[in-house]
Amino acid sequence: MTKKIHINAFEMNCVGHIAHGLWRHPENQRHRYTDLNYWTELAQLLEKGKFDALFLADVVGIYDVYRQSRDTAVREAVQIPVNDPLMLISAMAYVTKHLAFAVTFSTTYEHPYGHARRMSTLDHLTKGRIAWNVVTSHLPSADKNFGIKKILEHDERYDLADEYLEVCYKLWEGSWEDNAVIRDIENNIYTDPSKVHEINHSGKYFEVPGPHLCEPSPQRTPVIYQAGMSERGREFAAKHAECVFLGGKDVETLKFFVDDIRKRAKKYGRNPDHIKMFAGICVIVGKTHDEAMEKLNSFQKYWSLEGHLAHYGGGTGYDLSKYSSNDYIGSISVGEIINNMSKLDGKWFKLSVGTPKKVADEMQYLVEEAGIDGFNLVQYVSPGTFVDFIELVVPELQKRGLYRVDYEEGTYREKLFGKGNYRLPDDHIAARYRNISSNV
Amino acid sequence: MTKKIHINAFEMNCVGHIAHGLWRHPENQRHRYTDLNYWTELAQLLEKGKFDALFLADVVGIYDVYRQSRDTAVREAVQIPVNDPLMLISAMAYVTKHLAFAVTFSTTYEHPYGHARRMSTLDHLTKGRIAWNVVTSHLPSADKNFGIKKILEHDERYDLADEYLEVCYKLWEGSWEDNAVIRDIENNIYTDPSKVHEINHSGKYFEVPGPHLCEPSPQRTPVIYQAGMSERGREFAAKHAECVFLGGKDVETLKFFVDDIRKRAKKYGRNPDHIKMFAGICVIVGKTHDEAMEKLNSFQKYWSLEGHLAHYGGGTGYDLSKYSSNDYIGSISVGEIINNMSKLDGKWFKLSVGTPKKVADEMQYLVEEAGIDGFNLVQYVSPGTFVDFIELVVPELQKRGLYRVDYEEGTYREKLFGKGNYRLPDDHIAARYRNISSNV
Repeated sequence: MTKKIHINAFEMNCVGHIAHGLWRHPENQRHRYTDLNYWTELAQLLEKGKFDALFLADVVGIYDVYRQSRDTAVREAVQIPVNDPLMLISAMAYVTKHLAFAVTFSTTYEHPYGHARRMSTLDHLTKGRIAWNVVTSHLPSADKNFGIKKILEHDERYDLADEYLEVCYKLWEGSWEDNAVIRDIENNIYTDPSKVHEINHSGKYFEVPGPHLCEPSPQRTPVIYQAGMSERGREFAAKHAECVFLGGKDVETLKFFVDDIRKRAKKYGRNPDHIKMFAGICVIVGKTHDEAMEKLNSFQKYWSLEGHLAHYGGGTGYDLSKYSSNDYIGSISVGEIINNMSKLDGKWFKLSVGTPKKVADEMQYLVEEAGIDGFNLVQYVSPGTFVDFIELVVPELQKRGLYRVDYEEGTYREKLFGKGNYRLPDDHIAARYRNISSNV
Repeated sequence: MTKKIHINAFEMNCVGHIAHGLWRHPENQRHRYTDLNYWTELAQLLEKGKFDALFLADVVGIYDVYRQSRDTAVREAVQIPVNDPLMLISAMAYVTKHLAFAVTFSTTYEHPYGHARRMSTLDHLTKGRIAWNVVTSHLPSADKNFGIKKILEHDERYDLADEYLEVCYKLWEGSWEDNAVIRDIENNIYTDPSKVHEINHSGKYFEVPGPHLCEPSPQRTPVIYQAGMSERGREFAAKHAECVFLGGKDVETLKFFVDDIRKRAKKYGRNPDHIKMFAGICVIVGKTHDEAMEKLNSFQKYWSLEGHLAHYGGGTGYDLSKYSSNDYIGSISVGEIINNMSKLDGKWFKLSVGTPKKVADEMQYLVEEAGIDGFNLVQYVSPGTFVDFIELVVPELQKRGLYRVDYEEGTYREKLFGKGNYRLPDDHIAARYRNISSNV
């Protein structure tokens, strides 16, 4: 049976998410991000297109590296202003039945005890349609604003994230037994206290006696996403992630990451197929090639190199305004980096431009050759990019048996891993915390 | 012109909020608190009844004082399990147009920088219908679970809350100027960077350079509620609160608090009428007195003394299981305290039982004699208590000109303080932070 492709909409609760400069495009409605209807309309559109999930990126700091200032990011709305993505979920869940919501949250700034409750609450309210994209954040401005005194190195932030997840797993998987809530009216026992356990976590970064504040939600643990392609990031993915958002735009790079993470997963006793691999993709589709190119040119017209340099500075720490084009960063010249960023050719992700058939061919090729399971679909204009994809590419993928015609029933985890799999599999590291008793 | 009474529904994102034992009542649907539709149906009902707001209490710890254990609270669902109230708001805002949402959040556990963004996000999404009930929390179990190493004394927690609010005011009122966002397409300027200011806050508890992550929302600062009646709590209310949730069930007590807080407010240069006073009230109304008494008896039947003792223990720190009835706590014997709690006579708040006329009389009397402006309406059964009030008491109040017939247009602050008052008045302490410039 042909493998169905999973499609997520890649979004962010701000004006300028990724295609910087395009807020100026006449068809772009991103300025409506503060309006609840922008989001409920988007969720309904995505459900109409049978998308798996809305993937919401997030940052809690400002890009202030480029030109040693935050002004370019602020001027061009490069992920600032930026609102809290968790606040959007319940309204979007109310207007949909199947769409899932993968929301980014950093383990660097706020305590796991409060976060574990937020995610359990959202898993309840969405009836099991919530996922968490775990990030370890790297923005100095966020460190300062959250009063982080001791700035941890890149890899140690993943060590902290390991323990952060351990605390969450103990709360989600082990603190309340499945049949703790019994609602015994006769004996006035809503919850059997003997089935609610302290977790007594004592670690390097956190002391959390527990118990969890929430009764078990449909998935208990939200579907875990991870998106860091560094060595340490891939190790973290292999240990924790059920879905990985890969970097890279060509088969070789993607395949390397896919194979590497699946291999590492075995070390943790995990079935490598218990991890779905997502690649970012930019799609500009038209009924004809010319129509697609016309759209591309209209986007290129508003494309802002300055905006992308501000984003690049925040993401890498390199202020390219201080370099000459002949300087090198790693193996690439600054001239080449800047040239790449000045063109709309999908600097980080594969760009597929053309007819529905061409786009479907290129997506199918990446899936089959790189061994990935789905895509995070980038937006140029909102909601136009998704409208085009749903009207033109989805039918083509469905014709090839590569995309669902109707939603399957069940939670997000079941839609990814099959009916009945609404909880994490036993080979996941979280499963060891299921039989926590008070004396742990 | 007769003063209109403001009515809030008093709720909590859990099973057992306040009328412990009544989760067993056949008409009570509180077990549906994990279901999004419970909340959207409630919001629609309250808007039908022209309520001002849904007031959501919250705790992030467990009552574990009574019988030196958390078991009674867990067994009887006394505010555990408890989900996060902020996650509910966007769905309820989506199905209503006027109802406001006053949500409780503690200044003790999570950093103001993340909280300021959450509230700005909700003020945007609700189009100016969000309020924040500021609490300084007191539960040891929450202190442990959030890893609070240094437990602050009661009054010092208010000092920290003062600074917490100062940080938030600087972010909400001063960081982004009203016309910072200009959306100048021609010059690719979404936001004028010179109108986005760092706040450079440096205090005893927080260092927050800023700027805020969010563009100005309709109200900028959510409507500020406060609910602590200690000496320090009233001082805090006088300085910050626009709405105060008073303790007390008789005219004398309520009037003392009202007069005291209004007097203190003058010290801060505030017009005392810029503070609305809310008393808690329990209403059991029937078309006839007998019908009301029948309801009361059905509630009394399920009333749980043990549940209330668990709540009392968590709230006061006194484990009454260790006292004999002749012991005294303050000026009241333990026997009297327990006797009060065993009857459904509104242990903390005024109980009004009877016909619509009697209930309206008693509400009008409290408003006129104690100088209060509205009520937080307690629930016995959900949604029955609110349905009865809306069907029987609201028409009676409307007949007397004491209650709106239709909603006024505008934000929550405008509905409280009049059209055009969507931002904090100039006499509020937050106003001083409006002209923050980079060198503050």
